[in-house]
Amino acid sequence: MQELAYMNGTIMPIDEAKVPIEDRGYNFGDAVYEYIASYQGKLVYLEEHLDRLDRSMTALSFPKMSRDMIRRAILELFEQSGIQRAGIYLQISRGVAPRDHAYPDDPQPQFMMTVRPVHEKPPEFRHNGATAITLTDLRWGRCDIKTVQLLANAMAKQQALEAGVFDAIFVSESGIVREATSSNVIIANDGRLITHPLTEQILPGITRQVILDICAERDLPAEERFFDVDTLYAADEVFLTGTVTEVLPIVAIDGRTIGDGKVGQMARKLSRALLESVGA
Amino acid sequence: MQELAYMNGTIMPIDEAKVPIEDRGYNFGDAVYEYIASYQGKLVYLEEHLDRLDRSMTALSFPKMSRDMIRRAILELFEQSGIQRAGIYLQISRGVAPRDHAYPDDPQPQFMMTVRPVHEKPPEFRHNGATAITLTDLRWGRCDIKTVQLLANAMAKQQALEAGVFDAIFVSESGIVREATSSNVIIANDGRLITHPLTEQILPGITRQVILDICAERDLPAEERFFDVDTLYAADEVFLTGTVTEVLPIVAIDGRTIGDGKVGQMARKLSRALLESVGA
Repeated sequence: MQELAYMNGTIMPIDEAKVPIEDRGYNFGDAVYEYIASYQGKLVYLEEHLDRLDRSMTALSFPKMSRDMIRRAILELFEQSGIQRAGIYLQISRGVAPRDHAYPDDPQPQFMMTVRPVHEKPPEFRHNGATAITLTDLRWGRCDIKTVQLLANAMAKQQALEAGVFDAIFVSESGIVREATSSNVIIANDGRLITHPLTEQILPGITRQVILDICAERDLPAEERFFDVDTLYAADEVFLTGTVTEVLPIVAIDGRTIGDGKVGQMARKLSRALLESVGA
Repeated sequence: MQELAYMNGTIMPIDEAKVPIEDRGYNFGDAVYEYIASYQGKLVYLEEHLDRLDRSMTALSFPKMSRDMIRRAILELFEQSGIQRAGIYLQISRGVAPRDHAYPDDPQPQFMMTVRPVHEKPPEFRHNGATAITLTDLRWGRCDIKTVQLLANAMAKQQALEAGVFDAIFVSESGIVREATSSNVIIANDGRLITHPLTEQILPGITRQVILDICAERDLPAEERFFDVDTLYAADEVFLTGTVTEVLPIVAIDGRTIGDGKVGQMARKLSRALLESVGA
């Protein structure tokens, strides 16, 4: 079992993998990414991640890359690592070119990955719930594209940790609840789920969609619609969803207790259903 | 005369300079930059660029770096290049760490530079004026910090070129004119200049300030205040300002002629004054 990097076709130790300083990912944040996890030696939702990667690359007019090549590279890196519960971070940049805002004429995308054991969320957060603050959403206007334009996310996560909570939830200037720094937000009221619709302001989360699909299969009502921060505070339950986040209950936001301050029934039920679906 | 790179204390050919794939500049756009130009063998406004670099690093809670060390590195790279009319691109990232949104505990900033001849704007744009489109500003909420969160800028520049014009001017959702993809915007009406005030939505441009200082010295009226896109269209003159842009007249925007469609008196006067001040 070993942590490894992949760089344009070659597998190597992570600290040996480097990119040219004029990679546009480095100078412009002109790169897209995915994070794919395995459970018990099996990568899950790989095709969904490849779909979203293709969507991101298309949105940014990146040159087409072979999906089969990308899939093979991921599987080879995963296999060589021998890590059962792995997280594969995959990043593709537009390419390397002397710095100029305009896209280069003949870009050669740079394709890098790392594979490491998943850095699990603390079990106490799963058992007792985690806490959050809300922050005004300062991110750019295309958060639906999974790019490395993530400085606002990093700043917000840091601000949350310094405030003594687990994460920050972005709220628009008009008070609409969007998502957290690296996960979607879902609330539950009287057994009904509500989550932000798929607009350019949030990431189309794969786990978010899995949860909506589980609800549809089980006839649990779920709505994709806008809701404001007062609705968030007043919800019976709030939880975050994401590849590593899975279903993570939030029991206090901005110092206000959510529901009865304990992990709720919907979060427990959906967390179990998600773990079943991934074979955990 | 040779193009060169600098990486954490070492000068080398540009194509040999590389950064680890887990540099936060690459994975999060967690990096700041400056671009410093020389005229006739002399770097201009170096201290102003160092001031702004320090401001950017402070805003992002980067570890302190010695200003003297940075200045010495810039001057050494510039001298070794032997380029009289040089552009030095300087980028400092928070450091290298396994990918995690939160800031690493003990980050070692990565400091890179390139030096090349300045890629001048086409002389025809200086003589006859350039053209632009307006686009809704999709950038993040801290454009006052000079970071590599530049994908929206790159996309807008590309969109402008594909529309057959030189650049794009960002306009807020409420119609306020902000700045262009890599320069500030100034308009002139009856000999009075107007430009966007220094808020978190625009870069505090060094050339913008030089122009305002020139106006103050010469008793030319200049106001820093918001103005809308209709005011932009109706202006006598519009021009962009920036380190390489200098004072660049814009004579048509969104297909509408600005003023009489020719380069105006204010643009000519301020362009001459700027070139005098830099010893060009």
